[in-house]
Amino acid sequence: MKGVDTSRWDAARLAAWSDPHLARVESALSRWVGVDAPVRLGDAMRYAVLDGGKRLRPLLVFAASEAVGGQPAAALRAACAVELIHAYSLVHDDLPCMDNDVLRRGKPTVHVAFGEAGALLAGDALQALAFELLTPAGDEVAAEVQAQLCRLLATAAGSQGMAGGQAIDLASVGLALDEAQLREMHRLKTGALLQGSVEMGAACGDRQPPPVLAALRDYGAAVGLAFQVVDDILDVVADSETLGKTAGKDAASDKPTYVSLLGLDGARAQARELLARSLAALDRSTLADTAALRALAHMIVDRDR
Amino acid sequence: MKGVDTSRWDAARLAAWSDPHLARVESALSRWVGVDAPVRLGDAMRYAVLDGGKRLRPLLVFAASEAVGGQPAAALRAACAVELIHAYSLVHDDLPCMDNDVLRRGKPTVHVAFGEAGALLAGDALQALAFELLTPAGDEVAAEVQAQLCRLLATAAGSQGMAGGQAIDLASVGLALDEAQLREMHRLKTGALLQGSVEMGAACGDRQPPPVLAALRDYGAAVGLAFQVVDDILDVVADSETLGKTAGKDAASDKPTYVSLLGLDGARAQARELLARSLAALDRSTLADTAALRALAHMIVDRDR
Repeated sequence: MKGVDTSRWDAARLAAWSDPHLARVESALSRWVGVDAPVRLGDAMRYAVLDGGKRLRPLLVFAASEAVGGQPAAALRAACAVELIHAYSLVHDDLPCMDNDVLRRGKPTVHVAFGEAGALLAGDALQALAFELLTPAGDEVAAEVQAQLCRLLATAAGSQGMAGGQAIDLASVGLALDEAQLREMHRLKTGALLQGSVEMGAACGDRQPPPVLAALRDYGAAVGLAFQVVDDILDVVADSETLGKTAGKDAASDKPTYVSLLGLDGARAQARELLARSLAALDRSTLADTAALRALAHMIVDRDR
Repeated sequence: MKGVDTSRWDAARLAAWSDPHLARVESALSRWVGVDAPVRLGDAMRYAVLDGGKRLRPLLVFAASEAVGGQPAAALRAACAVELIHAYSLVHDDLPCMDNDVLRRGKPTVHVAFGEAGALLAGDALQALAFELLTPAGDEVAAEVQAQLCRLLATAAGSQGMAGGQAIDLASVGLALDEAQLREMHRLKTGALLQGSVEMGAACGDRQPPPVLAALRDYGAAVGLAFQVVDDILDVVADSETLGKTAGKDAASDKPTYVSLLGLDGARAQARELLARSLAALDRSTLADTAALRALAHMIVDRDR
């Protein structure tokens, strides 16, 4: 099977694949988020989720699901659920007691627009909604798949995943982390949910053999870490307008980053190495159709925002 | 079947039933909460959950599960999961941007002990952990039951449940709610998770006929509302030491309560009426073994803290 999909997609080919998926996600999120919620809460949830974000995690879900022949209905729910977890984490991360950020995706952050308590509750409700989306009544998604998706998402989001990484981040401000400690923090804070997206996509199909799952996890871990390295680079080289969020924050807040640790060239080399590692993992997976996963890995490393 | 279990348990009989369940919950929570989490986060999670609380929601899960012949392993996980959601909601509710409370169960609140960001993350991680506990790998709990438990808990916790009720509460400070509006707020804020506890217990057994589930839901709704009415009464008549939290807060913060709306005697009459309604629902359920559910309804109305 190897070799079939190694030809690299150009931007137009990637867009032809991702645009219909993005349209489905936007439409589903608009249908599912904040509807029938008390009015201010629903508004805050929709404000936090709709019309923003690169939807990278949903795309990873779709790409992994297609690589294993997954069920589209399950993949759509998994894609939306993981995006809701991502969105809630941003809402809470932006709060004054955390990063105290006022700008996100070029808009005032949720607590600026809806107050701190409103942002707190919107984040809490978005996390619950993620698990609600994964567990529809009826037979749209098999119970085994529902349970597995909840298991993967809860683990990726919780104390041994994203929330754990945020706690390490919080405790590390002003400390001199070495590269191993920085990597561990990012493995949890950002990597767990990106890797979880790949695993959730893979869970939408028939159960894969352990070596295939292991290869997909390795791919997810590599792109997850690459994403963060590139984030650190962009924080230094991009301006706030392009980023849609406050640039130069990490240096200003004395947070350790890959750039502060490895220098700009070192961080760039690290990103290329992680890209190569992610592609090698896909080679090992023996899956036939990994072109979208490959294209997403390239996109993660080559993005400018 | 009716009549078999109508003899009311005294306090000793209730304790003989509940004590072993409480011991199992404490032991399981201690084994499952905050273990392998980054150190400060794990400490905050355990601080928020262990050695405190009446564990009313877990008891409702166990009582409902036993009424339908549920699986003990599933019920234990459901009991712990619902308690984690309750615990996280208290942590977030106590934050300065919400109720700004410094005392809970006789101890400093989580944000006093661990900082605001620490409390925020601990709450977030507890919510994720709830869904993780509901979805163990392997065959300890059937996938259908796992999916159903996640569905019920997510709905009870989210924007059309607990978080929605908190949002209405937030928007209602200083407003003159009538009784219907107050009831709707509490139906979501407190009632949804109490009713959800009953439904989750019922989901631990074989699927019940719709009329039985409807009767259990009615029971849950009545005890859920009764719990809040009694809470409002206790806020007026009890002192902080007995309550383990700041008494007289509602009046001080100008929040509408059943006592402010109905007077003390009116609120007490309301609680008795809800108790009667909950017992009538159990009569309708046609389930043989509802003695524990009955005893819990009495306990909820007769409690002094």
